[in-house]
Amino acid sequence: MLAVFRLGHRVQRDKRLTTHVALVGRAFGADKMFYSGDRDTTVEKTVERVVKRWGGGFTVEYVDRWRTFLSDWDGTVVHLTMYGLPLKQVIDELRPLRDGMLVVVGGMKVDPEVFKTSDYNVAVTSQPHSEAAALAVFLDWLHQGLELEITFPNAELAVIPSPRGKKVVRKQATQA
Amino acid sequence: MLAVFRLGHRVQRDKRLTTHVALVGRAFGADKMFYSGDRDTTVEKTVERVVKRWGGGFTVEYVDRWRTFLSDWDGTVVHLTMYGLPLKQVIDELRPLRDGMLVVVGGMKVDPEVFKTSDYNVAVTSQPHSEAAALAVFLDWLHQGLELEITFPNAELAVIPSPRGKKVVRKQATQA
Repeated sequence: MLAVFRLGHRVQRDKRLTTHVALVGRAFGADKMFYSGDRDTTVEKTVERVVKRWGGGFTVEYVDRWRTFLSDWDGTVVHLTMYGLPLKQVIDELRPLRDGMLVVVGGMKVDPEVFKTSDYNVAVTSQPHSEAAALAVFLDWLHQGLELEITFPNAELAVIPSPRGKKVVRKQATQA
Repeated sequence: MLAVFRLGHRVQRDKRLTTHVALVGRAFGADKMFYSGDRDTTVEKTVERVVKRWGGGFTVEYVDRWRTFLSDWDGTVVHLTMYGLPLKQVIDELRPLRDGMLVVVGGMKVDPEVFKTSDYNVAVTSQPHSEAAALAVFLDWLHQGLELEITFPNAELAVIPSPRGKKVVRKQATQA
């Protein structure tokens, strides 16, 4: 189990960004996204629809008390932040810990407690950019690019890679 | 010169996503973002402010006619799309072409012409996720992780990587 935790979601303002964090988690080999802040069924439904269509078992779950959730997490907590230690410096140490890992991404203002509670604070560049991008690059390094070859079971649709244009096949959904 | 082209920006709806695409471009070693769709000075100002604060010479420029712009581009055009050829399959071929490269990212609906005009259509996974994430992972592979070590000249602020908490130093801005 490798999970993502998106802190401090705000309805409306963050809807698309949080959805992107979830979809990045799914596409790059995480199993689940937890999120705190405002409960947002639009995000949950959008992700569910993607999972139904494109396969796999990725789920989204709302967390009411992030402090308790973080401190109770049974595994390694990695907080992605531009203030943390460089990715390259810590990634070899993190790779063996990925089973049970919780990868935390925040928004604009992250509570100082998150920096303290996390086992690692990791910077995907020390520059401001995007939570979704930081998560994608982190997971790509964690899995050493192998996640780019994941095929998702029980998909209704699948892309046939093409040099030009879109090729999509409709698949018979099969139960694993 | 390595540039990003964000197609079909919509004011309000895409403000944060397009800003993220620009910031990812900057953080991962691109020099400039062009964008088409709606002109949006909020995005331009946000990125300018980040550049002033965190350094480097990244710029944003609005493009009125994307078709002409794309077909006139003097260099390799790489369109990132989940329908394209897998990143791993083409990245070695693309690396020598990065000087003069235009990396195109779209939104929801990309005009079929973009698939045709681009020299390469490249998939950072064949799954739906995020333009910002696709761009980050693409540039990371293109630069083989070396972009993670960029330092930005003329920064007002710089992060001192830290295992816990935030350490930021205020720098004397120096002209290169």
